[in-house]
Amino acid sequence: MTKKIAVLGAGSWGSILANVLVENGHEVNLWSNSEEQVQELNIKHTNEKYMPGFKYPEELVTTTNLKDAVKGAVAVLFVVPTKVIRPVAQQLVEVLDELDTKPLLIHASKGLELGTHKRISEVISEEISAKHRSGMVVLSGPSHAEEVARKDITLITAASDDLLAAKKVQNLFMNNYLRIYTNTDVIGVETGAAFKNVIALGAGALHGLGYGDDAKAALMTRGLAEISRLGVAFGADPMTFIGLSGVGDLIVTCTSVHSRNWRAGDQLGQGKSLEDVIKDMGMVIEGINTCKAAYELAQQKDIEMPITQAIYNVLYNGASIKQEISGLMQREGKTE
Amino acid sequence: MTKKIAVLGAGSWGSILANVLVENGHEVNLWSNSEEQVQELNIKHTNEKYMPGFKYPEELVTTTNLKDAVKGAVAVLFVVPTKVIRPVAQQLVEVLDELDTKPLLIHASKGLELGTHKRISEVISEEISAKHRSGMVVLSGPSHAEEVARKDITLITAASDDLLAAKKVQNLFMNNYLRIYTNTDVIGVETGAAFKNVIALGAGALHGLGYGDDAKAALMTRGLAEISRLGVAFGADPMTFIGLSGVGDLIVTCTSVHSRNWRAGDQLGQGKSLEDVIKDMGMVIEGINTCKAAYELAQQKDIEMPITQAIYNVLYNGASIKQEISGLMQREGKTE
Repeated sequence: MTKKIAVLGAGSWGSILANVLVENGHEVNLWSNSEEQVQELNIKHTNEKYMPGFKYPEELVTTTNLKDAVKGAVAVLFVVPTKVIRPVAQQLVEVLDELDTKPLLIHASKGLELGTHKRISEVISEEISAKHRSGMVVLSGPSHAEEVARKDITLITAASDDLLAAKKVQNLFMNNYLRIYTNTDVIGVETGAAFKNVIALGAGALHGLGYGDDAKAALMTRGLAEISRLGVAFGADPMTFIGLSGVGDLIVTCTSVHSRNWRAGDQLGQGKSLEDVIKDMGMVIEGINTCKAAYELAQQKDIEMPITQAIYNVLYNGASIKQEISGLMQREGKTE
Repeated sequence: MTKKIAVLGAGSWGSILANVLVENGHEVNLWSNSEEQVQELNIKHTNEKYMPGFKYPEELVTTTNLKDAVKGAVAVLFVVPTKVIRPVAQQLVEVLDELDTKPLLIHASKGLELGTHKRISEVISEEISAKHRSGMVVLSGPSHAEEVARKDITLITAASDDLLAAKKVQNLFMNNYLRIYTNTDVIGVETGAAFKNVIALGAGALHGLGYGDDAKAALMTRGLAEISRLGVAFGADPMTFIGLSGVGDLIVTCTSVHSRNWRAGDQLGQGKSLEDVIKDMGMVIEGINTCKAAYELAQQKDIEMPITQAIYNVLYNGASIKQEISGLMQREGKTE
C-alpha cells in the first residue's frame, strides 16, 4: 500500500533511501535546505555532488519546505549529518505540532552529538516527545549508497525498542536488493555505527603508511574489541557488535574505496595535513568528531581504547601518525 | 637463547615461519619430503613454487630426514596440509620414540580431518601420546606468508589448554613484526580457522558473480554467525570468534588477493569448473574439504548453516553457483 514518507537530508544515503522508497511504490518527499539542489533534483533528476551519474525517478518530489514534506507522512526519516540532527529535530517538532500529527521517526545517521556525546535517537527523542512520534527506529548496517543505487544486494538492520515499529520499517524499505533485519538493541546498533568510523580512520591510516592486509585485519579485530567494550559500558548487548551494524559495517567501512572515513585516514597516513584532508573531502567525515567523543567517554568510564587514543593523539594533539600507528602495532604481546 | 626447532612442511607458511625462527636466533631444521625442494632451499636458498622471489637465510637447514630434523629439537612445528597431518604424526612418533624425547608440539594448519571431522590437535594427540610431547599449541590468525616475509606487521594467536606452553611459543616466535597473543580456547581457535575457509569460498564466489562490498560484508557477518554456532556446538567459547583467529582471520581471508580459498570461490563465481579451479591453483584449497566436514557436522548437530549449505550444494551436488548465492542473499527478512 502506498504511503507518504518524508526523507530529511539529500546527501548520498538520504537521496538513495528516498529512491528505494519510490521504487517500493511509496510517495516520497525529500527535504533539503539547498534551493539549488532541490531544483537540480526536481528538474534534472540528478544530484551530481553526492551521486554523480545517477538518475532519480521523476516521481521523487524534492522541497525546501519542511511542512510540505511532512504533511500527511506516516514516517519521517532523518539522514542529515550528526551535527545538525538537533536543529533539524527542533524545526520538525514545530511543524509536527502545527500539523497535529505523530509520524513514525526513523534515522540513518551515524555519530554522537558533539559535546553531549548523546546517541542520535536520544537527541531526536529529547526534542520530539512521544506526543509527536509513534515510534523511533534506527536504520544501520553495511551499506554504500553507490551499491544500493545500482541494486547490488545490501543487508541492513532496523533497530527499535519496539519490535513492531522496527517491522514497519522493514516493510517500508525491504525489496529484492535491500534486505532488512530487525533488532531490538538500539544502543548497540547506534554506538557500533558511530565508533566504527574511528577504527576506519585507523585502518585507512595503516594503508596510507604502507602496511598490508594482515595488519589491517589485526587492527580491525582489536578495534572491534575496543568499540564493543565502550558500547557495553553504554548498555549495549555485546552480541550486537558481531552483527550487521557492528562487524558488518566495520568490514565495509574499512575495506571499501567508497568509505569517506577510510579515505580520510589513508590520506593522513600518506602525510597529508588534517586541514587539507577535510577541505579536499568536501563532505562530512563523521569519524573525526566521533573520535573525540569516544576518547572522552573512554576516559570517563576508564576503558582501554588504544586505537581510539592513537587516532585522537593524531587528530587533536598533533602527534605523528607514523609513530602512533607503529607504536600501536608493537605493543607488548599479551593474552587475547 | 638459541633453541633447536624442527618445522615440518616447507610450503609458503611453513618455510616463512622457519625463516622467522631463524631471524629470532634459533637453529631451525625444515623438513620436506621433496628431495628437489630440499636441494633448492639448501643450495639456492629459494622456494620458487611457494614463495617466488624470496631469499631464505643461509643458516636455514632443510632436510628430508625426519630424525635429523627432530634430533635435539625442543619444539616441533607441523605446517603440512590437513590430509597428511595423521601420517606425518605417525612418522614423527616413531622418531620421538627412537630418540626418547618429548618436544613441545605446535601446529599451524587449518582444517578438519576428512571423514572423522577431528580437529588437528586432536589428530596429533591421538597419534603422539603425552609420553612423547611436552605440550600442544595451535598457531593461528590473520597471516599471509607473503606479508610476514616482507616484515609487515602481523598479529596471531598461540592457543593451548596449558597457558605456559602458549607463552613458550609466544617467546619463540614474537619479534617486532610478528606479534603473538596467547589464548586458552583451543577448540574455538581451531574451528574458527577451519570453518572460515568455507565462508571465504562464498565471499570469493560473490565477487566472481559481480556483487559488491555491501553483499560481501553481509555474507561475512552472517558467515561469522554460522561458524560461531557450529564452533560453540563443538565446545568453543563464542568470544573466540571475534578475536584474531576468528573474525580477524575471516577478514584477511575474505578480503585479500593472497587467499587461495577466496580466489577459488572467485573463479567458481566466474563460471570456471571445480576441476579446473583445483587444477589451476596447484596448491591445497582447504575450504573444499572443510565445507564437506562443516556440512555433515551441521546436519548431525541440527545447526542452521545456510552459507555452508549453499557452498556444499555447489561443490558436491553440482548446483548452480549463481542460483545458490542469489538464493542465499534473498532469504526472508528476519530478526538478527
